[in-house]
Amino acid sequence: MAFNIKEITKELIGTSVSKPKVGTLSGHAAGEPFDKHAYECLKRRYPGKTYRQFEYLNELYSKNRDAVSHRERHSLISPPFLAEMINRGVRATNEWTIAAQFDEKQNDTADIILTEGARFRIIDVKTKNMSKNAQPPNIISALKVAKMCASILDDGELDGFEIIYLGITWKENGSRLECTDCVARHLFKSNPAALYINWAAAMQIQFNVETLDQGFSGSLKEWARGYLGVFTKGARERSDKMLKDYVCPYLRHIQ
Amino acid sequence: MAFNIKEITKELIGTSVSKPKVGTLSGHAAGEPFDKHAYECLKRRYPGKTYRQFEYLNELYSKNRDAVSHRERHSLISPPFLAEMINRGVRATNEWTIAAQFDEKQNDTADIILTEGARFRIIDVKTKNMSKNAQPPNIISALKVAKMCASILDDGELDGFEIIYLGITWKENGSRLECTDCVARHLFKSNPAALYINWAAAMQIQFNVETLDQGFSGSLKEWARGYLGVFTKGARERSDKMLKDYVCPYLRHIQ
Repeated sequence: MAFNIKEITKELIGTSVSKPKVGTLSGHAAGEPFDKHAYECLKRRYPGKTYRQFEYLNELYSKNRDAVSHRERHSLISPPFLAEMINRGVRATNEWTIAAQFDEKQNDTADIILTEGARFRIIDVKTKNMSKNAQPPNIISALKVAKMCASILDDGELDGFEIIYLGITWKENGSRLECTDCVARHLFKSNPAALYINWAAAMQIQFNVETLDQGFSGSLKEWARGYLGVFTKGARERSDKMLKDYVCPYLRHIQ
Repeated sequence: MAFNIKEITKELIGTSVSKPKVGTLSGHAAGEPFDKHAYECLKRRYPGKTYRQFEYLNELYSKNRDAVSHRERHSLISPPFLAEMINRGVRATNEWTIAAQFDEKQNDTADIILTEGARFRIIDVKTKNMSKNAQPPNIISALKVAKMCASILDDGELDGFEIIYLGITWKENGSRLECTDCVARHLFKSNPAALYINWAAAMQIQFNVETLDQGFSGSLKEWARGYLGVFTKGARERSDKMLKDYVCPYLRHIQ
């Protein structure tokens, strides 16, 4: 079946998950069951193509037993920008064995990986409580994206590479959380110049998935160049602001 | 009874609180019952002198009915540095009435306030799970402390003003959390030059309470000057680092 994220969003609306017993109904705690739920839904539709990030690596290394060192294993993924995003660290990669495979890790880049021939899609699930007017959530490290963009421009891109955000809105319904709305947004279809980087909050890109614009029609390389423009401009401004707000006002006190 | 924080730490060791039913046993969720527990303990020992921050303001405004505008109410606390730390915002202060008093607010500066004549103590409770080797927690905004220090140097200090951190270590014990250790550390007895500011993590000062040095013997003004030295040095370094790490490497990609 050809990949169609729109069908997935339609399928998810109206479905529900058990309310987590432990954890407040905010952030990660409520998001996790929906993340798993979306994954199951994708896996049913695209069997053999849908992975959690750790499953993808486990299968890749299981199928390539000749690759043993971290160098060999890391080079199983290409181009370099993708390898950097998906691979685990040197030590963990060296220590991987058939008997000691990877587990889920909270700071993995991708919630879900969907591969189809040479195409590679990263799908990240973001959830929010319908009844709360929350701040735009942390989406991804702005620095991670900057490194990705530099590598795309230096070492080459990958046709059909996509990062997709699945924005799930839910409400409490008895003992369950019900998905009331679901949208999909492509990072590389958004205008990179309009992205907001919260420099103080661990340099995270923040946005509400459902309001992310989708008007950018340039190539991935053009997107990467646009993003690095906004990233360096923001870093420069933040650097100036630190001197202006956090150094200058206090100089007279310490002299 | 004369204030003796050491007695409080001794009293707390071995006591326990109910395990919170909702929330994972990390960060705020586990900390909150111990915070309340320490407060009750202080209040029993120092009745009429122990307050939650919102209680302190409620009592202050209740006793000073002539002060109605935010300006009048804000000026009930002096010197200015303390007013800045304790007062709520303009709108909330204007809207306060006997019938609509303040409630607890998570980002209040102080967990507990202890006043004794002209002395003013802020007590903050930090908790950690004995069985986890956690990162040093966020203690207080480095910027808030910088503003406090500038105001102390500009507008005057307050004899006997203290900020005390109560570090509670706990372990799970059936349906309860038991305090296995408790220490008290005075912020102004620590060497300000040795404080760690995590600029990327919302500019928070971070330390483990039990390892905070207590070797500083200068005055509060000397501490303030020392702190502003370390704060501005750190801000300058962070500002340079942003150009070095987040701008320079990407200039060739955008030109």
